[in-house]
Amino acid sequence: MENIIASSSASPLKWKNNLLLLLDQRKLPDEVVYISLSNAAQVSEAIHDMVVRGAPAIGVTAAYGVALAAIEHEPKQAIDALISDMHLIAQARPTAVNLNWAVERMKKHLCSDKIVAQNFIAEAKQIHQQAIDDDAKMAELGASLLECGGVLTHCNAGALATCGVGTALGVIRAGIQADKITRVYADETRPWLQGARLTAWELIQDGIDTTLICEGAAASLMQQGKVDWVIVGADRVAANGDVANKIGTYSLAILAKFHGVKFMVVAPWSTIDLSVQKGEDIPIEQRDKDEIFSVKGKRIAAKKANGWNPVFDITPANLITALVTETGIILQPDREKITAASQQ
Amino acid sequence: MENIIASSSASPLKWKNNLLLLLDQRKLPDEVVYISLSNAAQVSEAIHDMVVRGAPAIGVTAAYGVALAAIEHEPKQAIDALISDMHLIAQARPTAVNLNWAVERMKKHLCSDKIVAQNFIAEAKQIHQQAIDDDAKMAELGASLLECGGVLTHCNAGALATCGVGTALGVIRAGIQADKITRVYADETRPWLQGARLTAWELIQDGIDTTLICEGAAASLMQQGKVDWVIVGADRVAANGDVANKIGTYSLAILAKFHGVKFMVVAPWSTIDLSVQKGEDIPIEQRDKDEIFSVKGKRIAAKKANGWNPVFDITPANLITALVTETGIILQPDREKITAASQQ
Repeated sequence: MENIIASSSASPLKWKNNLLLLLDQRKLPDEVVYISLSNAAQVSEAIHDMVVRGAPAIGVTAAYGVALAAIEHEPKQAIDALISDMHLIAQARPTAVNLNWAVERMKKHLCSDKIVAQNFIAEAKQIHQQAIDDDAKMAELGASLLECGGVLTHCNAGALATCGVGTALGVIRAGIQADKITRVYADETRPWLQGARLTAWELIQDGIDTTLICEGAAASLMQQGKVDWVIVGADRVAANGDVANKIGTYSLAILAKFHGVKFMVVAPWSTIDLSVQKGEDIPIEQRDKDEIFSVKGKRIAAKKANGWNPVFDITPANLITALVTETGIILQPDREKITAASQQ
Repeated sequence: MENIIASSSASPLKWKNNLLLLLDQRKLPDEVVYISLSNAAQVSEAIHDMVVRGAPAIGVTAAYGVALAAIEHEPKQAIDALISDMHLIAQARPTAVNLNWAVERMKKHLCSDKIVAQNFIAEAKQIHQQAIDDDAKMAELGASLLECGGVLTHCNAGALATCGVGTALGVIRAGIQADKITRVYADETRPWLQGARLTAWELIQDGIDTTLICEGAAASLMQQGKVDWVIVGADRVAANGDVANKIGTYSLAILAKFHGVKFMVVAPWSTIDLSVQKGEDIPIEQRDKDEIFSVKGKRIAAKKANGWNPVFDITPANLITALVTETGIILQPDREKITAASQQ
């Protein structure tokens, strides 16, 4: 899969001279600007403000955030401050479990009750590399499910969201390499327009023609037989296979079921939260309703309008054809199959 | 229903001193500006460019457009020019059948082979008044179906789309007066944002609290039990009850069926086209893909992105709980029931 990795031109973050450089995804595709971060508070704020987004990329960012905190607190061996910083980072956003997962994994270097910053940095780099490797495995596995046809994706589950070739977009990249995809459709994905801004941008950079649609057109697209697979990422998967992902995903899953279109969720194992029994127990982030009232600083909604702006929704497992992780494919995922896979 | 009519503060058009004044709906809610039109070419262009939109309002506009043509061509009795102007208006947009319906109805004043402009003006005024009266009847009928609960509407099927209290929004206004609606949700309705710009604007003007959602959130809203009825208008209804309406309507109908939410289509009889046997025979307008790439002149999509921008979709009759026209309610509409209703 090396070629696929090499072909992904977007990188959401870089670790350089003990600083974390984050690509400011809010400014894409107009500007490619990296922000330099040196402490946990900055990292927490950047995650909250969506400078970086996408569950796996948030995980890697969180890991480097802890590494920055370790560097800061190593001289005074301020373990309490480091733990407090870890807590701050873990709280930055509620839904993507990769955030907690990464912070928990970093915590193991606290065992010695001594802060050795190099250990934290090494662990963060390992988490980073694992994200890249996992993407490549998922891309190959997911693409093996495709037959020749059209695909529709939602939000951005690409290189910008993961550090590697992407989860959903990794599968799409591999599918294109294998001549199994005739056309890539992408929901524009309101209100943040990750599809229009990010997915189209990164795929077009790789020379992949991408057709944007408004969410409202997805049903019509399926009615016309233009979509064979819907392929999406995930922010958290419950123990029973229910999936939290960007608002609009659940809608696509219902529309897919109605039209006999297959539905693939691609997510690394770090996105699966066995401590959460079912989808409705996953905390869903609600963001300010003003986010749906303006686009690029221009007001689009009538004054005094009210709004409802959940960032994620829950797709029940029974609407999912295949859950693809780096360890394998789970067809028609359910609690039993996920439990079995977790014990392998 | 007089109070409801009086309470609708938005008027998409006015006939004044033998000129047609059209509210420029592209500029709402920022500016309330009327454009003065004096001939058929201007009317055709205004319909095409969406200065006015909404099937019934397009019908009334077309009727006044023919009246303007009759005024222009009366002095020279240029019947061929008048017929040519009628054709021009009828061709302005392809999907809303009210456009053709209104032009056909105006044509009866050509029988004498003599242009009497006053007859055309009187007919247009009658079509206008009928639209207002029909709205009031539909509002009462539609509201009779409601029990207490939340409603979700799509696009703008309101006063701005019809000249009266609106079709879907007429039912919602009447439902609120009857204390049958606990909350009004409105899809923002990409790409033209008729929900955010127009529906919210006109409902808020009437003191009706309106909660905007992005289309992608509709499924989640239904999953949470917050919607009891989806209520929409229509641009054309085929003889078998299939409905062409704003892109995204079909999606809502599937989501409603999946969640056991009821689905109401509200449209005057002039929207029903018995000459079209089924939905797939209704011509669907495709607009420039650039319309989905920019909002208020600001580019939102990556450069070189492709796009698919159908303006309407087809909702099959079997997803519709009730079709409400000015002559009555048709539950679970189908060819047989529509044929029977047409013969009453």
